Amino acid sequence: MLPRTRAVFRERVSMSQPLRVALAGLGTVGAGVVKLIDENRALIERRAGRPIEIVAVSARDRSRDRGVDLSRFAWVDDATTLAASGDVDVVVELVGGSDGPALTLARDTLGAGKPFVTANKAMIAHHGLELAELAEQKGVALKYEAAVAGGIPVIKGLREGAAANVISHVFGILNGTCNYILTEMEEKGSDFAEVLAEAQRLGYAEADPSFDIDGIDAAHKLSILSSLAFGTAVDFDSIEVTGIRHIIAADIAEAAALGFRVRLVGHGEESAKGLFQRVHPCLVPLSHPLAHVSGSLNAVVAHGNFVGRLFFQGRGAGEGPTASAVVADLIDIARGETGPAFAMPVAALAKPATAPAGDRRGRAYLRFTVADRPGVLAEITAAMRDAGVSIESLIQRGVADDGNVLIAMVTHVGPERAVADALDRLAGSQSLAGTPMLMHILDE
Amino acid sequence: MLPRTRAVFRERVSMSQPLRVALAGLGTVGAGVVKLIDENRALIERRAGRPIEIVAVSARDRSRDRGVDLSRFAWVDDATTLAASGDVDVVVELVGGSDGPALTLARDTLGAGKPFVTANKAMIAHHGLELAELAEQKGVALKYEAAVAGGIPVIKGLREGAAANVISHVFGILNGTCNYILTEMEEKGSDFAEVLAEAQRLGYAEADPSFDIDGIDAAHKLSILSSLAFGTAVDFDSIEVTGIRHIIAADIAEAAALGFRVRLVGHGEESAKGLFQRVHPCLVPLSHPLAHVSGSLNAVVAHGNFVGRLFFQGRGAGEGPTASAVVADLIDIARGETGPAFAMPVAALAKPATAPAGDRRGRAYLRFTVADRPGVLAEITAAMRDAGVSIESLIQRGVADDGNVLIAMVTHVGPERAVADALDRLAGSQSLAGTPMLMHILDE
Repeated sequence: MLPRTRAVFRERVSMSQPLRVALAGLGTVGAGVVKLIDENRALIERRAGRPIEIVAVSARDRSRDRGVDLSRFAWVDDATTLAASGDVDVVVELVGGSDGPALTLARDTLGAGKPFVTANKAMIAHHGLELAELAEQKGVALKYEAAVAGGIPVIKGLREGAAANVISHVFGILNGTCNYILTEMEEKGSDFAEVLAEAQRLGYAEADPSFDIDGIDAAHKLSILSSLAFGTAVDFDSIEVTGIRHIIAADIAEAAALGFRVRLVGHGEESAKGLFQRVHPCLVPLSHPLAHVSGSLNAVVAHGNFVGRLFFQGRGAGEGPTASAVVADLIDIARGETGPAFAMPVAALAKPATAPAGDRRGRAYLRFTVADRPGVLAEITAAMRDAGVSIESLIQRGVADDGNVLIAMVTHVGPERAVADALDRLAGSQSLAGTPMLMHILDE
Repeated sequence: MLPRTRAVFRERVSMSQPLRVALAGLGTVGAGVVKLIDENRALIERRAGRPIEIVAVSARDRSRDRGVDLSRFAWVDDATTLAASGDVDVVVELVGGSDGPALTLARDTLGAGKPFVTANKAMIAHHGLELAELAEQKGVALKYEAAVAGGIPVIKGLREGAAANVISHVFGILNGTCNYILTEMEEKGSDFAEVLAEAQRLGYAEADPSFDIDGIDAAHKLSILSSLAFGTAVDFDSIEVTGIRHIIAADIAEAAALGFRVRLVGHGEESAKGLFQRVHPCLVPLSHPLAHVSGSLNAVVAHGNFVGRLFFQGRGAGEGPTASAVVADLIDIARGETGPAFAMPVAALAKPATAPAGDRRGRAYLRFTVADRPGVLAEITAAMRDAGVSIESLIQRGVADDGNVLIAMVTHVGPERAVADALDRLAGSQSLAGTPMLMHILDE
């Protein structure tokens, strides 16, 4: 029960004493948290009702210069010992990784009856329910505003701001690296590999970028948003995930010619058919607010049955925005304004079936790279006809350097299974030079 | 002190019992609150941790059909008696008006040690500090999410979501009627009076629209946003307010030709010079998110020193969105997640000086309607030169039906006092047919 949770916490920590924070992980975000608390100290104390003080830190490398003075804080080599320290009221985990030391620290901290703050989407996506249950049992807070969309207070927006609504849909641009790459491709007309290499050179993309570009990071975040939006248990495994690595410059150009921008969208939806979650590159019409989310920005749209469409946009990653979200959680804890991690007790979260994608209806963008010979267009359009897919517009572009031709089309609204059927009919065709590209159109 | 506040409330209301709500005012929003609580009852109970039940209502006209069954609730003719009722845990005020019965009810409810929820921006703008102090003394919540930007959780976004940041600027499109009128003028090329008449016919504007179109309503909301953003006392009286009634179709067309849209913007800023607050129609570049806020939507932008630019958009008025915000406040109260009304105790709010507008630097749009005769352009440009205003672009349009000519210009960045000086130099000139139009350009 919520009241017990909070009452226990309130007895343990005196509300006029400083909130003593231990920080595990001193990468970009960890250093940002130290800087933020230093720089905004006086204002934070006024807003939190008491000082927030870092008392202990832990990281792998003690000698590295992080641009902040760490000599004031107790240094702990083994982060997991922070949980048991009598001088620590709350632990902030910025180590990362869904398992390993981060998870051990989470379990130990909550197990010791202390509130726990994290920016770790992978851990919340995979172990959030277990940790939320432990937090409930121990009557302490589990907070993770920084795990989704960086500095945008979207966890709070869904958990509290939109709490009066039955939410039907949530859409998000949740990965800044992908959005940066797609925006650069759009602005420069470059191909994916070229922009990715440049992003890696600039430090905007990891050396191993697959977590980002294959949509896994966005899927972690989507699973958390869906839980808050729909009052359902976090369900990462049922998410259909498609990344952006197969998008070519021509896809973005054709989409633009048709009045769309390509964005990697995390989409959660709850209906009588169940919970549907998908991360995929979409064609977003210019009239939709997500079309105007450019560069490394993140954004979230939620549709509530009374509030209508809510839209939140801001910086989704980096030192400052992520530190802002972490410290917002600490201020909530200092104020005593905390409750169940997923807005309701874990036992109250619904566990709906997964809604089948094939039942969904919408428009789709299809692009085929084909051999330049007679009959290919007829073969493709016949497959569409036989599968019951009706074509709204189609364009064929001249021969490329490799001798291939590009055919791009947008379908009329129809069931997704029909489009899948059409692509099945074409699978293995000698006319196709490469796998066709399918992107759904965001008409909602 | 925050802790005492909350502790007292927690002792009084058992957290496992329903939260018993009295509703004063059964207009559009009041009826919406009844509908929302009926329709989303089960979900609200899961999220709030206990049922939220309306137990008593009050309105002027008992017989009016409001599309909801009110026979279940106790009817009270005099709303102010709700405060004293032993069956009521919290009072929701949707009566309106900055003084009168709404204020009496607020004082009586808080004075009786009960939490108070309101959508009344005028009352919070004028009496918010007094009420917040009373709430602190009595240890109960004063909540007003619905008072600003309707369904957008922007009070929460600033009070909690961005709480870790020193916020330098806040900008808002805060009046849906004005934004609807400006968007219609933009899309149809119509003049102000024509669109206003149509908006009144459709019920989008009041019979007496001055509160909206002269910027007073937006100023009420801005004073509240500024307080939360900057940690300053609500200061309505120092707001410079200009409405939209002097904007003509040509202003919007010239702005569009230059790459801008015209929006009524509430702008708050805090710096070493003090607090600056202004409501005025601005030219917003298409690259700014506020340029894409169309129709009756509202939006708020805040700049924090760590989070960067946050952007919130949604429906700012009407039955559903406003009810959504009112019930979000009730859920916070049911959860016990409440604290000081303006994010910190009233005694902690700063009272900075008012920053003088003349010191501000920026670009400006100026439009003159002038007689069609030689020398007029020379007279205007000479005044600009003499005042030290440098012109970035200028256009003169041919003769209108009334024989007048339109001159529109955009200045280079410069002090506002120079533009004011130029206009002073031209005041009373026989060449001018009507007062010149000045709009600032939102380059931030």
